[in-house]
Amino acid sequence: MITVDDVRAAADRLDGVAHRTPVVTSRTLDGLVGARVFLKAENLQRVGAFKFRGAYNALAGLPDDQRRAGVFAFSSGNHAQAVALSAHLLGVPATILMPEDAPPLKLAATRGYGAEVVRYDRYEVDREELGRTIASERGLTLVPPYDHPAVIAGQGTATLELLDHATAAAGGLDTVVTPVGGGGLLAGATVVAAALAPDAEVVGVEPEVRTVARDAIATGAPVTAPIPRTIADGQQTPAIGRLPLEVFLRAGTRVVGVPDDAIVRTMRWLFERTKLVVEPSGAAGLAAIMDGRIEVAGRRVGVVLSGGNVDAGAFARLVTDATRG
Amino acid sequence: MITVDDVRAAADRLDGVAHRTPVVTSRTLDGLVGARVFLKAENLQRVGAFKFRGAYNALAGLPDDQRRAGVFAFSSGNHAQAVALSAHLLGVPATILMPEDAPPLKLAATRGYGAEVVRYDRYEVDREELGRTIASERGLTLVPPYDHPAVIAGQGTATLELLDHATAAAGGLDTVVTPVGGGGLLAGATVVAAALAPDAEVVGVEPEVRTVARDAIATGAPVTAPIPRTIADGQQTPAIGRLPLEVFLRAGTRVVGVPDDAIVRTMRWLFERTKLVVEPSGAAGLAAIMDGRIEVAGRRVGVVLSGGNVDAGAFARLVTDATRG
Repeated sequence: MITVDDVRAAADRLDGVAHRTPVVTSRTLDGLVGARVFLKAENLQRVGAFKFRGAYNALAGLPDDQRRAGVFAFSSGNHAQAVALSAHLLGVPATILMPEDAPPLKLAATRGYGAEVVRYDRYEVDREELGRTIASERGLTLVPPYDHPAVIAGQGTATLELLDHATAAAGGLDTVVTPVGGGGLLAGATVVAAALAPDAEVVGVEPEVRTVARDAIATGAPVTAPIPRTIADGQQTPAIGRLPLEVFLRAGTRVVGVPDDAIVRTMRWLFERTKLVVEPSGAAGLAAIMDGRIEVAGRRVGVVLSGGNVDAGAFARLVTDATRG
Repeated sequence: MITVDDVRAAADRLDGVAHRTPVVTSRTLDGLVGARVFLKAENLQRVGAFKFRGAYNALAGLPDDQRRAGVFAFSSGNHAQAVALSAHLLGVPATILMPEDAPPLKLAATRGYGAEVVRYDRYEVDREELGRTIASERGLTLVPPYDHPAVIAGQGTATLELLDHATAAAGGLDTVVTPVGGGGLLAGATVVAAALAPDAEVVGVEPEVRTVARDAIATGAPVTAPIPRTIADGQQTPAIGRLPLEVFLRAGTRVVGVPDDAIVRTMRWLFERTKLVVEPSGAAGLAAIMDGRIEVAGRRVGVVLSGGNVDAGAFARLVTDATRG
């Protein structure tokens, strides 16, 4: 069972390594939603997303022999860069397995952190089997993106900092909102809130068309579905992790859905009013609030803006084409 | 003469009213320029620019009778919104004079803060005469955008916070860089550095095609030139103020030029690597460093990112079209 002490230990490991990202407030936003909102700007985190916290914490906790042998991860997204940078900082060799059709920019960024990138044909190769082969033949340790206690504890540090800030500014939080993909960030938030703000409600947000988090919580068991069509690419995971699900069920964490058009409107609002570049998944939490999917009236609400890695062209189209809400 | 005590008094007035904006760092940036760089994110300030600091400080310092009668300002840019919001917060009636061809969005934003907007034909009307008429007929007090001690002291609070942060993180600053339009921000930075970091070099940055700041410092007297063609619209002022010029001459503040294409590359870099939306003038200081116009090797460098108010369409074009440097 992951406890707030694991999160605190992760915070000690991350001290001076991860950015203590700013908490942004906007009285305009507070007026719009009738609440006091604290936005934790994890888009300003190293590698542009909260993922750095969990990856670094997982790598820093590995025994020496595993660190020497090296680690590997499957990812074409933020987790790849998080593992690559963490490994670089800790002097651990890293191999990142990326699909052959991964964006060239992400490939270059991951290599830029010094990781070896191995590409595979995701339509021909069984990923699980490839992983087992790499682990046994090369002796590498897998760093999973969310279904791992040290990763969840690392992600929890974002909420720990957010709660600290809100406690100093407003005496605490009544609601904590984060996006949910695999569930690492939301599980970390749940652990922190359960210990330090037990009356606070913790709410995860997934794209409306992707219901695996809500379905898993409703049925009490993992649910897998085809990769959903949504602009929120950080949440195109086919399932949530088993460990996060356990945390959600024990604490009563709730998940709501949010439509893509609300996410786009929120990205544009964040661009225009807060001057922050936030990727679609990163805006999902606030989008659910601004779209009225979470009751926040009169409350102190902490929201994690989880990342900012969005291609310039895509961002440009989204912020200029968005229908105004 | 404006002193650091004036800046400290301004900081007291702004406490709890202005945002204490975050200072953003990037090891990638530090590696690129061979320095430790501290970016003061004034694009995250209220109204999206440092201008709020000076306007609020000026209004808060007015005697009661002037506050009751109301204030006015000429601006189609950040100063308009800064005066409008400050007046709203202080219960002071505000009239903003805007050219008839001001962007509708800025007009709406200024009205949104409760100011009365009066439009004038800038090709037909003498602005100075219009100002005198308004002041005498309506009894309003002009809030100038930069040539005023309380405005300069207010802008200085941005550098005061930046220096505080860098002192805690790195023991101080060796160089302070800000954009220079009318000179209020740079003058405030100069006052703060002269008192608290007397060995630090203070450098202003103006668009390369606009030389009035450099010319005024070189000749020791105000220089006026036609409005320059540059994307840095926050620096399309025809001259720098007399008070800022005095401050620069006394302290030996230096100004360098930066070309528009370097500004655009820096905006794109900031978008991609720091996830911050920064307007062209707001990126000018960092652009001068990244373009090699300021010697920073081995130094601790504070840079004010002065604002983030850029139209979505323009921003989209700039970050997608920028030639990579």
